[in-house]
Amino acid sequence: MTDTVEVVGRARPRPLEKGAPLASPANLLADVPLPAAAIFEAPLMHNIAWMQRFAEAHGAKLAPHGKTTMATKMFKRQIDAGAWGITLATAVQTAAAHAHGIERVLMVNQLVGRANMVLVADAIAAGLEYYCVVDSVANVRALGEFFADRNLTLNVLIELGIEGGRCGCRNAVQVETLATAIGEQPALALVGIEGYEGLIGGDDEIAAVRAYGERLVDTVKMLRASGVLQRQAPIVTASGSKWFDLIAEAFDNAELREYYTPVLRPGCYVVHDHKLYAGAMEDIKARQPGLEGELQPALEVFAHVQSLPEPGLAIVALGKRDIGHEPDLPIPLRRYPVDGDASTATLLSGWRSFHIMDQHLFIEIPGDADVAVGDVIALGTSHPCLTFDKWRNLLLVDDDLAVRAIIETSF
Amino acid sequence: MTDTVEVVGRARPRPLEKGAPLASPANLLADVPLPAAAIFEAPLMHNIAWMQRFAEAHGAKLAPHGKTTMATKMFKRQIDAGAWGITLATAVQTAAAHAHGIERVLMVNQLVGRANMVLVADAIAAGLEYYCVVDSVANVRALGEFFADRNLTLNVLIELGIEGGRCGCRNAVQVETLATAIGEQPALALVGIEGYEGLIGGDDEIAAVRAYGERLVDTVKMLRASGVLQRQAPIVTASGSKWFDLIAEAFDNAELREYYTPVLRPGCYVVHDHKLYAGAMEDIKARQPGLEGELQPALEVFAHVQSLPEPGLAIVALGKRDIGHEPDLPIPLRRYPVDGDASTATLLSGWRSFHIMDQHLFIEIPGDADVAVGDVIALGTSHPCLTFDKWRNLLLVDDDLAVRAIIETSF
Repeated sequence: MTDTVEVVGRARPRPLEKGAPLASPANLLADVPLPAAAIFEAPLMHNIAWMQRFAEAHGAKLAPHGKTTMATKMFKRQIDAGAWGITLATAVQTAAAHAHGIERVLMVNQLVGRANMVLVADAIAAGLEYYCVVDSVANVRALGEFFADRNLTLNVLIELGIEGGRCGCRNAVQVETLATAIGEQPALALVGIEGYEGLIGGDDEIAAVRAYGERLVDTVKMLRASGVLQRQAPIVTASGSKWFDLIAEAFDNAELREYYTPVLRPGCYVVHDHKLYAGAMEDIKARQPGLEGELQPALEVFAHVQSLPEPGLAIVALGKRDIGHEPDLPIPLRRYPVDGDASTATLLSGWRSFHIMDQHLFIEIPGDADVAVGDVIALGTSHPCLTFDKWRNLLLVDDDLAVRAIIETSF
Repeated sequence: MTDTVEVVGRARPRPLEKGAPLASPANLLADVPLPAAAIFEAPLMHNIAWMQRFAEAHGAKLAPHGKTTMATKMFKRQIDAGAWGITLATAVQTAAAHAHGIERVLMVNQLVGRANMVLVADAIAAGLEYYCVVDSVANVRALGEFFADRNLTLNVLIELGIEGGRCGCRNAVQVETLATAIGEQPALALVGIEGYEGLIGGDDEIAAVRAYGERLVDTVKMLRASGVLQRQAPIVTASGSKWFDLIAEAFDNAELREYYTPVLRPGCYVVHDHKLYAGAMEDIKARQPGLEGELQPALEVFAHVQSLPEPGLAIVALGKRDIGHEPDLPIPLRRYPVDGDASTATLLSGWRSFHIMDQHLFIEIPGDADVAVGDVIALGTSHPCLTFDKWRNLLLVDDDLAVRAIIETSF
């Protein structure tokens, strides 16, 4: 695997942006104004390889959802590890990824609005292999006219939704109507089907997710049989980071391996987390006893204890502008004493975040906690997405907290 | 008032970043990939002038909290309108503001950690007038040693907190101990007192906020009388955007006007909002019957209807990565039909956001709603801060939605 990320010594330091080191080479604890977000390189690379192996073992392609990180350097690591392409959600994300060298984008969202179509058309004209989803005749017609005017072909997948869910056709009649409307637009190529199982809930959600995966497979087979698909190996795609094993199983059979392109597209797996997806991983391990290895948390945010105003209370200098706080508040993991290095870490026990404001985190600590103003706390997250978009620069670090690279984001 | 914001024609377009127009000149509806965040210039300038007049009418200085927008072009408009300085929360924010021409920063947070101290010391050495707050002897000693080594004087304010609150000394004994510790550090100059009333709640919160304002005033007077303050007109500062009238009243008397520097520092007022602070404004008007005029909402986010999958449901193409959703979900304000201009807007009634995901907003709409896929919806927010940090570029627009400038942020 090629390391495509520049080390800091070759990058331009930007000390006025959050997360930018003051020195090069840099250590997170000594040379970086905190708060700062760190990605540990070893679990990151483990996760990238683990999920690639997982997809391949099920005969599926992997198109990691890039909206989690919007870090094109991480996209390149995922592609280098064998990913089929990058999944994205918007035209601007698509344009940014393409400008940074990504050659295949699966946009699992409707492409709506003339300016967004311009961005995508320009990228396609410049060589991007691009797919988006459709679920309405109005959108199909708008896309058909726009791309005909541009003399380009647009690949579309029909989105299959669930009743009470998000976007997507609710039933087979709607799918058929939409396929017919697509067929009337020479600029559009219908190449497969797309869905998202993440909204499925209820008493027997596992069975419901399996059934939805099977419905996706049945639908793409029906479309193929009816001759409306304009691709040799039609695409069938679903899966976030919670149920990817069930979708992979639904897509994993000899017929799909030979005649289709099954695509999994989890996003959060790349850095995993310390609570929400950590719990999902436990569930996956429980229902997949043969699974080898597991995802590991790779993202942490570091910040100082700024005040110890009352017994049992620590105020840490970071907040909603720096770290995600949904569905759970940040999780205190380790403490480093003032001027300590990575070897001085102690694991925290009995520390519990209970409130967060824009720039402050409130942590309940044991009455006899060993802590001082100026200590550094490493915090984990529950769901990584809303931490990434707080940072223009995340720091790729090794186990000694030496900064190996600056990971820029394109939000 | 000088218009310090470049018009788009003179700025470099960055079409790969969220919010960047594709053309110049640009109209928000025709030339900008959506979603995009817009600031309406007329209410923005009204708010800047309104709050400046309000502070001056109470004999106070205004140091708008810049963490709301982190848009240095907006800071300059606030300074041009008469603001005393800019309030900020972190060393990196301070360094960014100073690099963009802000000359006086009130950092209402503890300055903790060597790298943060380096950033601030460099800015002070380069001419920045800077203040931070302290609430612990440990931090006072660390700051005293660091700034003595740098041969610089650091202005500090004692933070006065509330029991069960955030940072800050809880009582007079702690204040006195801290003042003594500051006096032992030749590199530190104690110049006033700081507090934050935003956490006060309870049955009679108005009386509690007034009492806290008076406690701040009494404390700074006590410190002045004891001879420990090293500033001719010591600073006393508090106020967010909810209770600013009560703090202004507490600070408004002949003695403070003559011998002190009272500083108000609301942040959200600059663009106000459509719910949380709109409600706070109604409360302020109710308790201040003589108040002339009021703040106006200036920030909206525009996005397309991407799917109408079921009767009564619209899915709009923006989400948590684009707009704040706390304490309330985005508020649907107006609809523009496909390819419509500003004159085609219709006010929305009976539309209600009920769920938000990373890239999707779920809106309950009337069964007979006039709406099509591709329509544009303008959305308001409840609390503006967590919308600003989703954007590197916000668009300053006029009433015709012509883009007057790109407002860059420095998050």
